[in-house]
Amino acid sequence: MNIAVFVTGGTFDKEYNELNGELFFQKTHVPEMLKLARSRVATRVKTLMMKDSLVMTDADRAKIARACMQAKEKRIVVTHGTDTMELTARYLASRVTGKTIVLTGAMVPYKFGSSDGLFNLGSALSFAELLPAGVYVAMNGRHFAWDNVTKNRKLGIFEERKAPRKAR
Amino acid sequence: MNIAVFVTGGTFDKEYNELNGELFFQKTHVPEMLKLARSRVATRVKTLMMKDSLVMTDADRAKIARACMQAKEKRIVVTHGTDTMELTARYLASRVTGKTIVLTGAMVPYKFGSSDGLFNLGSALSFAELLPAGVYVAMNGRHFAWDNVTKNRKLGIFEERKAPRKAR
Amino acid sequence: MNIAVFVTGGTFDKEYNELNGELFFQKTHVPEMLKLARSRVATRVKTLMMKDSLVMTDADRAKIARACMQAKEKRIVVTHGTDTMELTARYLASRVTGKTIVLTGAMVPYKFGSSDGLFNLGSALSFAELLPAGVYVAMNGRHFAWDNVTKNRKLGIFEERKAPRKAR
Amino acid sequence: MNIAVFVTGGTFDKEYNELNGELFFQKTHVPEMLKLARSRVATRVKTLMMKDSLVMTDADRAKIARACMQAKEKRIVVTHGTDTMELTARYLASRVTGKTIVLTGAMVPYKFGSSDGLFNLGSALSFAELLPAGVYVAMNGRHFAWDNVTKNRKLGIFEERKAPRKAR
Repeated sequence: MNIAVFVTGGTFDKEYNELNGELFFQKTHVPEMLKLARSRVATRVKTLMMKDSLVMTDADRAKIARACMQAKEKRIVVTHGTDTMELTARYLASRVTGKTIVLTGAMVPYKFGSSDGLFNLGSALSFAELLPAGVYVAMNGRHFAWDNVTKNRKLGIFEERKAPRKAR
Repeated sequence: MNIAVFVTGGTFDKEYNELNGELFFQKTHVPEMLKLARSRVATRVKTLMMKDSLVMTDADRAKIARACMQAKEKRIVVTHGTDTMELTARYLASRVTGKTIVLTGAMVPYKFGSSDGLFNLGSALSFAELLPAGVYVAMNGRHFAWDNVTKNRKLGIFEERKAPRKAR
Repeated sequence: MNIAVFVTGGTFDKEYNELNGELFFQKTHVPEMLKLARSRVATRVKTLMMKDSLVMTDADRAKIARACMQAKEKRIVVTHGTDTMELTARYLASRVTGKTIVLTGAMVPYKFGSSDGLFNLGSALSFAELLPAGVYVAMNGRHFAWDNVTKNRKLGIFEERKAPRKAR
Repeated sequence: MNIAVFVTGGTFDKEYNELNGELFFQKTHVPEMLKLARSRVATRVKTLMMKDSLVMTDADRAKIARACMQAKEKRIVVTHGTDTMELTARYLASRVTGKTIVLTGAMVPYKFGSSDGLFNLGSALSFAELLPAGVYVAMNGRHFAWDNVTKNRKLGIFEERKAPRKAR
């Protein structure tokens, strides 16, 4: 089973710049993570952008949607910042059909010894293999439909919405 | 969704004894791993034994089968050494019905900075949430039915059997 | 040999706040580091402050100087942010006499898998055991007298000054 | 100041073979450790052998002694297994003069997230920079003269001998 992995940035891939003490993006760690994980899933990893999801625009989301539509793979994992993951999920749901798209991310950068990044990557790939067509968020070992997920910023976890979303 | 996680040992949980330079078992790291992974899956973790799977006996396998049958959960993850994982899968398939059982493990101990342990744990939990009743092995980001999996000892990966197994 | 370890903060002890994505101070990791290092040096660890050295004031430096003077130990290690380490070294040199004081720090937080923090801590304690009374900076495995050290911000390393400093 | 670093193996450099679950030697991690430590000490790293110190012979020790004598550097760090570190120290003391030789090692392999390896390397280099000619062991943040050190196997630490050794 072939899975496309589209990288968009997010905490997942942030690094520490020791010269100025700031966090920044260099290149994605997804290939390194898949190698260390001894993954044998047939994946094609492609970096679409390297952005904090707080600064993502609709042009960025259009680019992600386009990549999902044009992909030859029916199953797609998108690594994404957690802050606007639910917005991108909603955006993709209104524009891409017939594909299983799973968004995932991390609360702690992989390079800082993040345990949730690797766990989430394993989880997202597995959900992508089995879930029917649709757009989902995979975080905290759970999966959520695009219209029933929100980030609880106080607890730093994802959970069901009180009231499901409408497509944008 | 409630998932029982039965710990049986394996490389997953091995540690380094700095006094004699040997590998040994202390207690399982699964709860610590779930915590670091920010898992919000409703799991019940229970240690059944702490064994290298090369020394597992049928009495051990009977104990695992019993725990699976008696569990109130319909979905179960079993952490297990990789060397005889396929034997235990076959054993469970012939004795437990009506439950989704996913065996997983690691090629490198979690305490040695194993990346595959965390990845596999995320993967196994996700497969356990979605797969229909049956016995499976989840390794390398993939899942295999109990009668169609074998460890390639030369490459250190799991793959399909040339010819599917018969139930024992 | 007794060594006082005075903690003042710096990159050494910074952590990642997964709720807001910012770096912050919680409590020092020095005791944990000494434990993992299997250190048997007779140390007394005391946190004087937890500050980025860019925001340190002369009142902070006076507090460090006071702690050095009042310490019963003749040998002292001060963990410190790298950005103004040389200023604090100069300050201490003009106010504390008869003691061996070694300032050290890290370019990468210990919690982010910093390798230089542990290396520098081992190095600083060893220099503190052997160097005669005076104020020194220990970074990059080297030691520098307080009046002959500067941080090369472009390379992120410490080196000798072109022209030695005068006491303040 | 130039320091020769002679690698002889030991726990320091052991790795986990995921195909057979055994510990083994591949190549030394000392250059990688020095890089991660941001070391700017002028070091020359040379691998003399990769051995568990329990299987070291007098021929091995003669080889180490020869390397120390022939080195152009006056200051030398030797990485070594902890089990017979004191024997090699005694051997070198009886054969090499006019040089500062510091033996160090680790209780936990660097690749298993060893914290004592990096700490000890920083410590050993610093002791090597300052100690007068002689043979020493640097472990646990402390340094010991060759004739007054022993490994306490029960505690896994190095300490002074009850009665100092005689040269062999």
